[in-house]
Amino acid sequence: MAAKQDIEEGLQFTPRFDDNGLIPAIAQDADTGQVLMTAFMNRQALDRTIQTGYATYFSRSRHKLWQKGEQSGHLQKVRQILVDCDQDCLVLKVTVDAGQCHVGYQSCFYRALKRGSTDELEFIAEKVYDPNHTYKKQC
Amino acid sequence: MAAKQDIEEGLQFTPRFDDNGLIPAIAQDADTGQVLMTAFMNRQALDRTIQTGYATYFSRSRHKLWQKGEQSGHLQKVRQILVDCDQDCLVLKVTVDAGQCHVGYQSCFYRALKRGSTDELEFIAEKVYDPNHTYKKQC
Repeated sequence: MAAKQDIEEGLQFTPRFDDNGLIPAIAQDADTGQVLMTAFMNRQALDRTIQTGYATYFSRSRHKLWQKGEQSGHLQKVRQILVDCDQDCLVLKVTVDAGQCHVGYQSCFYRALKRGSTDELEFIAEKVYDPNHTYKKQC
Repeated sequence: MAAKQDIEEGLQFTPRFDDNGLIPAIAQDADTGQVLMTAFMNRQALDRTIQTGYATYFSRSRHKLWQKGEQSGHLQKVRQILVDCDQDCLVLKVTVDAGQCHVGYQSCFYRALKRGSTDELEFIAEKVYDPNHTYKKQC
């Protein structure tokens, strides 16, 4: 295993997959900065993402690779892959069209905790497409 | 446990902590949109974050709560807490000063995979402070 100094300050990409062989990846709109979704990658998903230029994740529920948008057509074109200091988390800067969340919103983060409340949310976005016309589960 | 429909479309904040009692939280600069870091919260860390208005996380290595910036002074003032569709991930929109990463950078994501490479990184930021003058481990 690489030394802490090398992991943090070096230029060797040595992503640290967890005990299940997974690393979390945050998809961020390269143009707006909006955080769109988070998902996991295994080594194969990461390799395929790098090779194809389109985000591929590993579904923990379905135990298989899925290219984001394979059902909906809402692919994520990867512009840049960032890694954090200890190389156990990725940020994918992606270019997308409308509707990255399976519920119908552009981002999976379409609700926020209401100011002054500990348990009440409010919507901070509007749906950009009708998921009933597209597909089932994705994010 | 709440129904999928309620979790995804409802306005009740029901964060889903994992088997270890943790939920991942992404700290994002509220002004620039830059993803600064990711960390975990347990219920207590989340409650304290909501109560105080400053980000508190749970350190898996030290097995205790830590308020971001408790050593460095680089606190994260929380403007908004977003939750994703299945309520198992948070985004914290925060206001910060310089230097959120313990290595010395503004963000923990200071390197990107070099274009055309599968294993070589490049720096995409410059250090904004000298961590040797501040403290040891934080992100």
